[in-house]
Amino acid sequence: MATARPRIYFFSRIDSAQTWRDALAAQLGDDGFDWIVGPACAAPDEVDIALMYNLPPDGLLAFRHLRAVLSLSAGINQFDCTRIPHGVPLARSVDSSLAQHMVGYAKAAVYRYHRRFHRYERDSRASVWQFELPRPNARTAIGLLGLGELGSAVACALAADAFEVHGWSRTPRDLPGVRCHAGAEGITQMAGAVDMLINLLPLTAETHGILSSKLFDRLRPGSFVINMGRGGHLVEADLLAALSVGRVEAATLDVAAVEPLPAGHPFWAHPGILITPHVAGITSANTAAVQIAENVRRAMRGEVLLNQIDLERGY
Amino acid sequence: MATARPRIYFFSRIDSAQTWRDALAAQLGDDGFDWIVGPACAAPDEVDIALMYNLPPDGLLAFRHLRAVLSLSAGINQFDCTRIPHGVPLARSVDSSLAQHMVGYAKAAVYRYHRRFHRYERDSRASVWQFELPRPNARTAIGLLGLGELGSAVACALAADAFEVHGWSRTPRDLPGVRCHAGAEGITQMAGAVDMLINLLPLTAETHGILSSKLFDRLRPGSFVINMGRGGHLVEADLLAALSVGRVEAATLDVAAVEPLPAGHPFWAHPGILITPHVAGITSANTAAVQIAENVRRAMRGEVLLNQIDLERGY
Repeated sequence: MATARPRIYFFSRIDSAQTWRDALAAQLGDDGFDWIVGPACAAPDEVDIALMYNLPPDGLLAFRHLRAVLSLSAGINQFDCTRIPHGVPLARSVDSSLAQHMVGYAKAAVYRYHRRFHRYERDSRASVWQFELPRPNARTAIGLLGLGELGSAVACALAADAFEVHGWSRTPRDLPGVRCHAGAEGITQMAGAVDMLINLLPLTAETHGILSSKLFDRLRPGSFVINMGRGGHLVEADLLAALSVGRVEAATLDVAAVEPLPAGHPFWAHPGILITPHVAGITSANTAAVQIAENVRRAMRGEVLLNQIDLERGY
Repeated sequence: MATARPRIYFFSRIDSAQTWRDALAAQLGDDGFDWIVGPACAAPDEVDIALMYNLPPDGLLAFRHLRAVLSLSAGINQFDCTRIPHGVPLARSVDSSLAQHMVGYAKAAVYRYHRRFHRYERDSRASVWQFELPRPNARTAIGLLGLGELGSAVACALAADAFEVHGWSRTPRDLPGVRCHAGAEGITQMAGAVDMLINLLPLTAETHGILSSKLFDRLRPGSFVINMGRGGHLVEADLLAALSVGRVEAATLDVAAVEPLPAGHPFWAHPGILITPHVAGITSANTAAVQIAENVRRAMRGEVLLNQIDLERGY
């Protein structure tokens, strides 16, 4: 039935169900769809659309009449496709504004450390006038972990600002103006060559816990860490240890293992840690909802989706 | 005598005499020159070179055997040339790295407000996780006061980052990607059209006190002010008043009427004010000393100076 009211099942451990419901309501109308927030689902075989960042713990095999699986993110590498009913079309979310938002966040964090605003913030409250000679951009080296669509955009933007930019990816890449490293040796090589480390990797079994003592121990003393990936990339105790010995001078964390970061967490009030509430790319709901609403309509009419995934190629 | 040891008289209300002495010593040798720090000077007619940002209160007419007046800045509009002995050659200081430093400082201040890091800094200390949807760069409008060499560089760099950029100058200018305003009407017009105001004007009799209630009253509520010019541009009480009513949400001040900013000054510890210790372009001593040392040598040999000023043209 092309005119049926779509039943949408939503699940994400990192995105706000309310934000996405509101963004979709602006496109489909407040009464234009049913909205079930997972992980629990009373009648999975009545669900038309699964809208998710990651799969719910029980997978989607009980959702036998799905018309589409729509990813909240630009990739589907967080999905185990064997746990999705065979033959259901998948689409990723393409948000043209996301790369610019990530670049802007990276610049806010990078320039804050590069020009020592993080120190002047404290000095301003303590009536201290003490300057450090600023370094030319070319003498601050920045390493990107992850050179996918977003990591590459950040790397190229910082290179255009004349910083010395390094990038690491699992398999070798080639980007103009970026010193590219790859593989297990490449990551430790890059860590020893940079002043700031920015994580933009996807969260997979291989990248889980990659921001650990093993990596921090390779950094130059007084380095900076910026996590724009996922909370699961970071071994929290290892960061606190690296901060306590000055291996890491300061860290900016946009993501946490549990969000919001719980009250009483040692990251709160740590003078070396700036917490930002998952805002590096948060506008995706507002702009991506246009495309997702269109895919809801297409799925209900049985049409090919926008940005439909070719499972053979994997993207 | 071409081989005489030059006697250099230094005066600036804003630059550190020690920093400049050290920078020149690296070029001319520790014992390569005599160094007199003004305003007082016991034997003005024995001075060969005056190195200054601004004139000392009594002018330079008593310095009857000057071979050169070297400006610490890129301009000489802070000099009253009638108070300098007639016929002494003047040179300005050209520091190729200065524009990049000013652009980097402007980006640090702009992105901090644009991406709300100034709020997250406070929230991190108060265990508050509260996000604001970031705006696309194109929806933050930034106004530059001053479109000289440095103001233009900042304006063009922010326009390249997709911000909406406005610029104001006394006489009309035309810059690609920048909405240019001019004259007395233009400045109030621009103030009403922007979210952030960056001052990069030279300090002259006309621009003294230009950052005043008259201008602040035209800003949209919740605007941001960034002063990268001189302390004399700002009417301090007017900024405090604008902050107290929320007309200005926050201000970043790299310069002050008296530097270092005195203990007990109300700007210290004001939660809406970030003080930076005159670092937007501070590296000029290190890089500019090369050219200044060469001009000291040329002046002692009676040669034409690098970047000598043509007083007819004024630059």
